[in-house]
Amino acid sequence: MQTPDALVRASALVTPAVDAAVRQLDPSLHAPIRHHLAGGGKYVRAGLACLGAAAAGGREVDGVPGAVAVELVHNYSLLHDDIIDGDRERRHLPTVWARFGEGVAIVAGDALAALAMQVLLETPTPARVDAARRLANANQAMIAGQAADMAFEARARVTVDECLAMERGKTGALLSAACAIGAVLGGGDAAVALALGAYGEHLGIAFQAIDDVLGVWGEPSVTGKPVGADLFARKKTLPVAVALQAGGDAARELESILSSTPTASLVARATVLMEESGARDTVTAIAERHLRAALHALDDTDLVAGPKEELVAVARYVTARDR
Amino acid sequence: MQTPDALVRASALVTPAVDAAVRQLDPSLHAPIRHHLAGGGKYVRAGLACLGAAAAGGREVDGVPGAVAVELVHNYSLLHDDIIDGDRERRHLPTVWARFGEGVAIVAGDALAALAMQVLLETPTPARVDAARRLANANQAMIAGQAADMAFEARARVTVDECLAMERGKTGALLSAACAIGAVLGGGDAAVALALGAYGEHLGIAFQAIDDVLGVWGEPSVTGKPVGADLFARKKTLPVAVALQAGGDAARELESILSSTPTASLVARATVLMEESGARDTVTAIAERHLRAALHALDDTDLVAGPKEELVAVARYVTARDR
Repeated sequence: MQTPDALVRASALVTPAVDAAVRQLDPSLHAPIRHHLAGGGKYVRAGLACLGAAAAGGREVDGVPGAVAVELVHNYSLLHDDIIDGDRERRHLPTVWARFGEGVAIVAGDALAALAMQVLLETPTPARVDAARRLANANQAMIAGQAADMAFEARARVTVDECLAMERGKTGALLSAACAIGAVLGGGDAAVALALGAYGEHLGIAFQAIDDVLGVWGEPSVTGKPVGADLFARKKTLPVAVALQAGGDAARELESILSSTPTASLVARATVLMEESGARDTVTAIAERHLRAALHALDDTDLVAGPKEELVAVARYVTARDR
Repeated sequence: MQTPDALVRASALVTPAVDAAVRQLDPSLHAPIRHHLAGGGKYVRAGLACLGAAAAGGREVDGVPGAVAVELVHNYSLLHDDIIDGDRERRHLPTVWARFGEGVAIVAGDALAALAMQVLLETPTPARVDAARRLANANQAMIAGQAADMAFEARARVTVDECLAMERGKTGALLSAACAIGAVLGGGDAAVALALGAYGEHLGIAFQAIDDVLGVWGEPSVTGKPVGADLFARKKTLPVAVALQAGGDAARELESILSSTPTASLVARATVLMEESGARDTVTAIAERHLRAALHALDDTDLVAGPKEELVAVARYVTARDR
């Protein structure tokens, strides 16, 4: 599926602004952060902030400070998550901790997080202050999601609702904030920010649900992750939560596998059990439900027609299985 | 030396507010954060924020949101620094990463950093927004100091000026922000915030210089750190920078020791070389110079007399060798 034009435009607008912000950091952090950013990324959050500004009646460029701040928060979370998950590769490059050491990756992440607030607060207009407040709250919700994700690894089972709440925080909160911050910077009122925030939150959950499905049944050459990586890490993703909640012998066997030391054959068996429980279809249906909810949210308020259409296109792109 | 009354009052005012803020975090983070906070701490930064508010003409309680935010930033930096330095104990308790794992310590630190901004921005009055902006900038300066400190470990020598700049960031920036944020929240104008900020920055450098001296020549039972810990970690503290900059055979021998694998006898020899170079007296003189500069800064503007006297008392306490 082709990258939507809105994301291409956002990348062109936001990349130089991110680079300029990073140049303000301590010189010893430039190399690790540039190494990380060179891996690319789809600029979905930046695109949502710029489109949010335009959909609210402003210009895409009005959303740029928010887009920069949201991308900085996203990337700080990637730097820290890669340490936490022990992931040595991202986008076919060594992760920052694997290449520069854990200490550098921790501090580089901290620097990006602080930089996000600096970018918004250096010129504290009411809209930027509101954006900073929303971003701090979204960051905390994202952290809570990450903390829950880690706590789940030590638990034998989690409910589907617990898993959805975790994914709402881990992925939904920042996508929601990107849209709402864009709306605020574009001059939108509270109703527009609310509707765009709801769009972003549902889109985040839909995206994460599809990511979970691809994590179990996806093609490693497409996903860039080894087969069963989530299961080896004992992640309680949505397919796991759905299969466990289905109950019966299969759920008991799955629970027992997830409490054992993971091996390739146990992971393969767990995958079969999840498939047989119908978890793949159920989670795909969850993703589709949240995609529909995201699109419905766009009809809850008056938005500028062109950017609104592009938000629909971004939603379809982000939730496509071959993205 | 007895704890100044201002710090005792600040601890009583700020501890419940910090606890209330921490209760908003994801429940899985409560235990690690409470474990860390139970270790105590002197509430110097909280005391400076409350005294700053009072010295500017407000009440100590006006400084509390700033005091809470600054303590949260201080404690997030401790959680992350303990991972980076591999320190397994703080205040005679296991550090969070040693007790709960590195991932939990990273996320708990991230949560405290985000919480600091939330505390200030939840009610975005102009003073609180200004406080948030100052805190984001101080956090970034602190991170730059930490990054420089780490980069110095890999270098054979650093100048005294480089070392002072690093310590200004690592320790001076947050003490400075604590005072200036207190001033702003207490209704002080830019001149008062500037003078109190200068007091805090010089005090931070004086404190750090004395900490460096104690790190080499202090009594482990008082400092709570093993003898020569900084030298084993190849830290380029002020005594090292001063001794290296003195030049001559002693500096060459010290440089060679600091590039070798540290052993107890090499660390003992490095300590003798630094003593003979006069570094102990030179760094003590640097600390005294910055203490005087801190006290002078208090005379640069009109401050309320009582809180001003207490700021002097806190400065003497923080820079006392038996604190």
